[in-house]
Amino acid sequence: MAKKRVLVVHGPNLNLLGLREPQIYGNLTLEEVNAFMAERGGELGLELEFFQSNHEGAIIDRIHAAHGRFEWLIINAGALTHYSYALRDAIGAVGLKTVEVHMSNIYAREPFRHTSVIAPVCMGQISGFGVNSYLLAVEAVARAAQ
Amino acid sequence: MAKKRVLVVHGPNLNLLGLREPQIYGNLTLEEVNAFMAERGGELGLELEFFQSNHEGAIIDRIHAAHGRFEWLIINAGALTHYSYALRDAIGAVGLKTVEVHMSNIYAREPFRHTSVIAPVCMGQISGFGVNSYLLAVEAVARAAQ
Amino acid sequence: MAKKRVLVVHGPNLNLLGLREPQIYGNLTLEEVNAFMAERGGELGLELEFFQSNHEGAIIDRIHAAHGRFEWLIINAGALTHYSYALRDAIGAVGLKTVEVHMSNIYAREPFRHTSVIAPVCMGQISGFGVNSYLLAVEAVARAAQ
Amino acid sequence: MAKKRVLVVHGPNLNLLGLREPQIYGNLTLEEVNAFMAERGGELGLELEFFQSNHEGAIIDRIHAAHGRFEWLIINAGALTHYSYALRDAIGAVGLKTVEVHMSNIYAREPFRHTSVIAPVCMGQISGFGVNSYLLAVEAVARAAQ
Amino acid sequence: MAKKRVLVVHGPNLNLLGLREPQIYGNLTLEEVNAFMAERGGELGLELEFFQSNHEGAIIDRIHAAHGRFEWLIINAGALTHYSYALRDAIGAVGLKTVEVHMSNIYAREPFRHTSVIAPVCMGQISGFGVNSYLLAVEAVARAAQ
Amino acid sequence: MAKKRVLVVHGPNLNLLGLREPQIYGNLTLEEVNAFMAERGGELGLELEFFQSNHEGAIIDRIHAAHGRFEWLIINAGALTHYSYALRDAIGAVGLKTVEVHMSNIYAREPFRHTSVIAPVCMGQISGFGVNSYLLAVEAVARAAQ
Amino acid sequence: MAKKRVLVVHGPNLNLLGLREPQIYGNLTLEEVNAFMAERGGELGLELEFFQSNHEGAIIDRIHAAHGRFEWLIINAGALTHYSYALRDAIGAVGLKTVEVHMSNIYAREPFRHTSVIAPVCMGQISGFGVNSYLLAVEAVARAAQ
Amino acid sequence: MAKKRVLVVHGPNLNLLGLREPQIYGNLTLEEVNAFMAERGGELGLELEFFQSNHEGAIIDRIHAAHGRFEWLIINAGALTHYSYALRDAIGAVGLKTVEVHMSNIYAREPFRHTSVIAPVCMGQISGFGVNSYLLAVEAVARAAQ
Amino acid sequence: MAKKRVLVVHGPNLNLLGLREPQIYGNLTLEEVNAFMAERGGELGLELEFFQSNHEGAIIDRIHAAHGRFEWLIINAGALTHYSYALRDAIGAVGLKTVEVHMSNIYAREPFRHTSVIAPVCMGQISGFGVNSYLLAVEAVARAAQ
Amino acid sequence: MAKKRVLVVHGPNLNLLGLREPQIYGNLTLEEVNAFMAERGGELGLELEFFQSNHEGAIIDRIHAAHGRFEWLIINAGALTHYSYALRDAIGAVGLKTVEVHMSNIYAREPFRHTSVIAPVCMGQISGFGVNSYLLAVEAVARAAQ
Amino acid sequence: MAKKRVLVVHGPNLNLLGLREPQIYGNLTLEEVNAFMAERGGELGLELEFFQSNHEGAIIDRIHAAHGRFEWLIINAGALTHYSYALRDAIGAVGLKTVEVHMSNIYAREPFRHTSVIAPVCMGQISGFGVNSYLLAVEAVARAAQ
Amino acid sequence: MAKKRVLVVHGPNLNLLGLREPQIYGNLTLEEVNAFMAERGGELGLELEFFQSNHEGAIIDRIHAAHGRFEWLIINAGALTHYSYALRDAIGAVGLKTVEVHMSNIYAREPFRHTSVIAPVCMGQISGFGVNSYLLAVEAVARAAQ
Repeated sequence: MAKKRVLVVHGPNLNLLGLREPQIYGNLTLEEVNAFMAERGGELGLELEFFQSNHEGAIIDRIHAAHGRFEWLIINAGALTHYSYALRDAIGAVGLKTVEVHMSNIYAREPFRHTSVIAPVCMGQISGFGVNSYLLAVEAVARAAQ
Repeated sequence: MAKKRVLVVHGPNLNLLGLREPQIYGNLTLEEVNAFMAERGGELGLELEFFQSNHEGAIIDRIHAAHGRFEWLIINAGALTHYSYALRDAIGAVGLKTVEVHMSNIYAREPFRHTSVIAPVCMGQISGFGVNSYLLAVEAVARAAQ
Repeated sequence: MAKKRVLVVHGPNLNLLGLREPQIYGNLTLEEVNAFMAERGGELGLELEFFQSNHEGAIIDRIHAAHGRFEWLIINAGALTHYSYALRDAIGAVGLKTVEVHMSNIYAREPFRHTSVIAPVCMGQISGFGVNSYLLAVEAVARAAQ
Repeated sequence: MAKKRVLVVHGPNLNLLGLREPQIYGNLTLEEVNAFMAERGGELGLELEFFQSNHEGAIIDRIHAAHGRFEWLIINAGALTHYSYALRDAIGAVGLKTVEVHMSNIYAREPFRHTSVIAPVCMGQISGFGVNSYLLAVEAVARAAQ
Repeated sequence: MAKKRVLVVHGPNLNLLGLREPQIYGNLTLEEVNAFMAERGGELGLELEFFQSNHEGAIIDRIHAAHGRFEWLIINAGALTHYSYALRDAIGAVGLKTVEVHMSNIYAREPFRHTSVIAPVCMGQISGFGVNSYLLAVEAVARAAQ
Repeated sequence: MAKKRVLVVHGPNLNLLGLREPQIYGNLTLEEVNAFMAERGGELGLELEFFQSNHEGAIIDRIHAAHGRFEWLIINAGALTHYSYALRDAIGAVGLKTVEVHMSNIYAREPFRHTSVIAPVCMGQISGFGVNSYLLAVEAVARAAQ
Repeated sequence: MAKKRVLVVHGPNLNLLGLREPQIYGNLTLEEVNAFMAERGGELGLELEFFQSNHEGAIIDRIHAAHGRFEWLIINAGALTHYSYALRDAIGAVGLKTVEVHMSNIYAREPFRHTSVIAPVCMGQISGFGVNSYLLAVEAVARAAQ
Repeated sequence: MAKKRVLVVHGPNLNLLGLREPQIYGNLTLEEVNAFMAERGGELGLELEFFQSNHEGAIIDRIHAAHGRFEWLIINAGALTHYSYALRDAIGAVGLKTVEVHMSNIYAREPFRHTSVIAPVCMGQISGFGVNSYLLAVEAVARAAQ
Repeated sequence: MAKKRVLVVHGPNLNLLGLREPQIYGNLTLEEVNAFMAERGGELGLELEFFQSNHEGAIIDRIHAAHGRFEWLIINAGALTHYSYALRDAIGAVGLKTVEVHMSNIYAREPFRHTSVIAPVCMGQISGFGVNSYLLAVEAVARAAQ
Repeated sequence: MAKKRVLVVHGPNLNLLGLREPQIYGNLTLEEVNAFMAERGGELGLELEFFQSNHEGAIIDRIHAAHGRFEWLIINAGALTHYSYALRDAIGAVGLKTVEVHMSNIYAREPFRHTSVIAPVCMGQISGFGVNSYLLAVEAVARAAQ
Repeated sequence: MAKKRVLVVHGPNLNLLGLREPQIYGNLTLEEVNAFMAERGGELGLELEFFQSNHEGAIIDRIHAAHGRFEWLIINAGALTHYSYALRDAIGAVGLKTVEVHMSNIYAREPFRHTSVIAPVCMGQISGFGVNSYLLAVEAVARAAQ
Repeated sequence: MAKKRVLVVHGPNLNLLGLREPQIYGNLTLEEVNAFMAERGGELGLELEFFQSNHEGAIIDRIHAAHGRFEWLIINAGALTHYSYALRDAIGAVGLKTVEVHMSNIYAREPFRHTSVIAPVCMGQISGFGVNSYLLAVEAVARAAQ
């Protein structure tokens, strides 16, 4: 059922997860994170599809293509979070219900990370729980999609 | 076991939950929200205790008193979120691991709600999922407390 | 008749009225001001009830309790005017029609007094007429309540 | 008696009162508002004279001419409120006691309307009560002129 | 003699002194700090009375009540220092000569701690010397009270 | 037909067109510009009327008078663009559909010219094409009026 | 003739034109808009070529490639308008005469849309006329290219 | 000889000179100030003509009319100094060499008076010497006109 | 007579006058400027003494030493104008009546030159007339000293 | 030896080097610049590899791929310098020692060019020496790599 | 013993102490203040050496020379407090424990005095107690040096 | 030959190089740094002369004296970099080609260090390479002087 399909988008530099700066982002690779999300999503009746890119344009293209095929979007836009108004407009235009995710607590880091230009077009935001931020986002979708 | 005990604090005006502005905050009363949290917490092996006050000082006192008796704090500080540095220092001082909760997406509302002065001393933040924000916070504690 | 009942709230430091800084605030005590308001209210068919506190939380509690028992609120929030978003939310939540009062012309004083965070949730504002600001607020309620 | 004479000045666009945007400004025309003010002023022993102009310079000329002939000024400067330092200096120079009036609650509208450059040279301000803002200003003068 | 009586007020979270964050605030408890102050005050001919609260309103009440009974106020307002205009007005209104105290050097910490809204109504400020900040404040009172 | 009648307003200093600073504004006089506009408007079925003044008040008067007689307004407010909230309110009040015109590219000049306080109440803006900015505005009206 | 060739560039999300948010952007698809432009351009002796991409880099590549092949650029950069200094430098470097287009009135929307970082390197800007913004841009080129 | 002719413009509220606020502006009336200027100008071979208005538009008209008849402008624009970009453009357009005058030291008064929007298009500025500011401006013209 | 003695201070880089950047500062050397000032001062009954230094401290020392020996100070502080609060305090402390001079129009140059930190403690300011700025300052002293 | 390998990245628009705006950037093409760098690098015992792209995402991909293969990065990020936090995070994540290069003096140009968001994660910055900026960067690597 | 030696530095204009503006700074000369400090220091086992200069550079030289000869610095930097980052770096570099002193309450004066650029590299700050500020600083050193 | 002569200026606190804070600035003394520069300069056909001072005025004097004797200036202005507009004007006035040097990466330190007020009058800037910043500056001069 379309409304149970969830697109998960990882933005720039998240492909390095688990490979670099483990003291900040933990030891899990992006593939392992995705596997945990897929497993938990399955338990909750969700079907997840994953996409990572370091290209703003590729992420926008992917979100456009999700229209009609997905009803939910979980996105960790990486540093695009702080300046990509084009990404914001993409999310606003396609009408996917969107959960914004951050592994670190962006409000406890550099000032430029305190502003999310996509937050106003998302349903909600989860930040600061490491890999659990992603799993909580899956829960959030499952609960809201009921 | 002490580490599984969670204090849940609701700040100013949250006693009105379900009674006023249901189009924004839904129809559940604070007691019903607490009941849902307690139930879900029980399933996850957590013991929750609840506190609401419209008094900044009373909330600070309560957080102080939680020291040694609780290891986790879930807090929706209401509008104190935006200016109470005293509350921030209380959280920072007692050393409870803290999850910040907002029912509405504070980043899609008035500009003064975009700033949380307590965020830098919290582990993470969940906002925008209505009553589910609270339940996701319970999940977040359970996952992190494992 | 409920719609004719008016709660009058005085915020922090207003209990000192007439006792301190008479060159700014005049010689009338808060009790005398209240008496004048009650008298003028009586002439205009209004029933007034008075409350003063230096505690932000106590004022919020009192405004909550006014719900259903009063239809109008006259408030001089003192210095809470300039930062208490919690008070703003309380006024916004209970739905009392509210008149904001200041004895001094807050726009001719220090810059921090030029901003009222409660103004956007009030019907109107009267400032600068000393004790008459309060009496004009009573008139304003009487006129609007017709 | 000179001290009981009140000049009432309406600034730019107020000649449209009652003709345009009634949902904001009500259905009374400026002439009707003036008539209500004159009537209420008469009851309170005041003699009012009215002036409206869309020209900043004409308003300044009129205020200058009021010197010695009026002791009070009631002014709704319209949008000049927000930038006309020349008007501010005119009020400051002639020494009329001045009541600033706004029909709408300027603090609940666009940010540029939150600043009144004339407020610091006025005795006080009344905003947000529709046509009653004007009548309250008449009351304010009567009370202060006692 | 009234002029030698000093009220010492500790604001939010200072009840935790010595119990939490000793690397920042040292190992002395508030009671021990008070004892040192009382002892030193006694040597200098001062009589000190102590008050701590996490409630902004309770602190304001206490300062009001000090009027006529004390001539000096030593205050560490904690984080209220940075936003409580109500506390500022209380100090300004009662007319106690006031010494502002901070244990840490607030100018070497987070930017929000660099602004004290109560400083303009105090006689002077001492910050950065740990518990000695309090003792220097006692000295400051003794010297100024000569 | 009323809906095809267009008022063209030129603000302060535009009477100097073609006479001064030709390197910026070209060699055409205001009369010649108006003639070109009238000609092009005629081809497109529009009837244009022209007004120039260096007086903010006179421009506001003229816009008021246009109510009911014109359906469209083309305006180059000159430097009033950057501060005349009174003009903004006039445009907003009379309800004419409005096209804002600038001959020079205001975004490539001094910072104060980057802000138009009337833009939010206009349908659209054309800037930077010299005299063609006016002719394009005529086209814009013709297209939108279809 | 080279000087009559015009490149038309549509930025991120404009491929969704007519498909999403018709209440804002109308019912025409991008293909239909392009067809209208081509038709009007043909009447005016212009040859238009069209390009749309959600990739900042692809747009810059396309503008570079236009050097020597086109003399004019019509661009609606979408949300890149507000932050892409790289796009600005591309326009500035290749030396195409450029017309900036926006369908909506960007000055009547969110504050972040009020700033165009490419405006200073464009000849002029047309915003707020829906699809007609594009057709007016074609007219602007035709007039300027005469 | 045209190059020795000087237009002297006094802006809003300067007609009140000597009549109001003598503690700030002295006891000389505007007529007396003009007489002093004319006398001193005569000694220095200058022919002065005077104009005062409270109307921004009238001042702009007068400056336009000065083109070709005067080579110098001495202007005290009163409070228009701080916001009238239209006046700035008038001065910039007609090409008169201009001396800006203020009787008071505008940099020792309210912050809004610290900015002159006309200063960048004037040759120089003289402020703070009371009536002598005007006489020094006459000297400045005489010296520069040599 | 002491009150007729004038100290003239030239700040950093003014020793280069006439030697460097003549297109901005003219061809006169500082010695020649001083000679003109001395001559004009002599005609007006003033006795001038001159001092130039590139050292902030030396200038402050010189102003201190002027106390009791001079009644007037003419100062072109060069770039110290924009940041030397120590110089400001020196002028404020010694109580010399001070005329601030600038050869160029500082308000038509880079933004950092628009602020003078010494202006609030000077009687007045003359800027923009080249060497004549100095001669006008001499006139200003002579007139004010009458 | 891995530590002697250097990746050189040129950002948006730098492919136009030597072809456009030679008055700013000189006559050398990017290929010629690279050749000079390679030659100088060779003399200093470095092996350089070159990459240019107008795509932020492609540059990030390239930097990721450099991990383990290069120890040094020389980067002229073009206008991405001023807003690409994603690029900043890429540099920070892969751990290459990085030298930031600009041909022009970015501090003498438009204000938006004064801020480099990547500077805090680079070792150092060289700007303003034209093509020599690149050659100095090669020297910088050679010296630091010793 | 070296650790008990204290350098006392007085910045610009403090040589005027007691001679000028006694209503602000009292009647004691700098020599008398130093004598009081020396006496009190002697009682507390400290050996003080004094230095005053109006030259930023001389103060920096003196602080450098103190390295190894003093362990403590008491400094009233005068107005250098507000802008001398060079002084800040000197204090930071030599590693003397530093107490910042101000006689007046700098937070109750002009806004530019509210910022101390040296505060972040000092141990603590004492301001507002007149000459007692200096004596309290001596006490502070004695207490901290124990 | 004059054009090959280079003045090297070290600003405040740089005399401490190698003696203090070696973890930041390394172990080389200023004399050793100068020796390295002289050696490298000699290899490149440059003749260097060195000057260090903690006095802004002395540095300005030295730069003035360099006029005609040197063609190049290498300067590390220390903390004067961030506020000394007098130094900026000195560099701008004498016309030496100037290379700005910083040993640390000023953009990775405190915000006040991110602004260089002298950068706009320098040819270029090198920062972040420790002692190599100086040697690269020598190379920069040699390359540019070819």
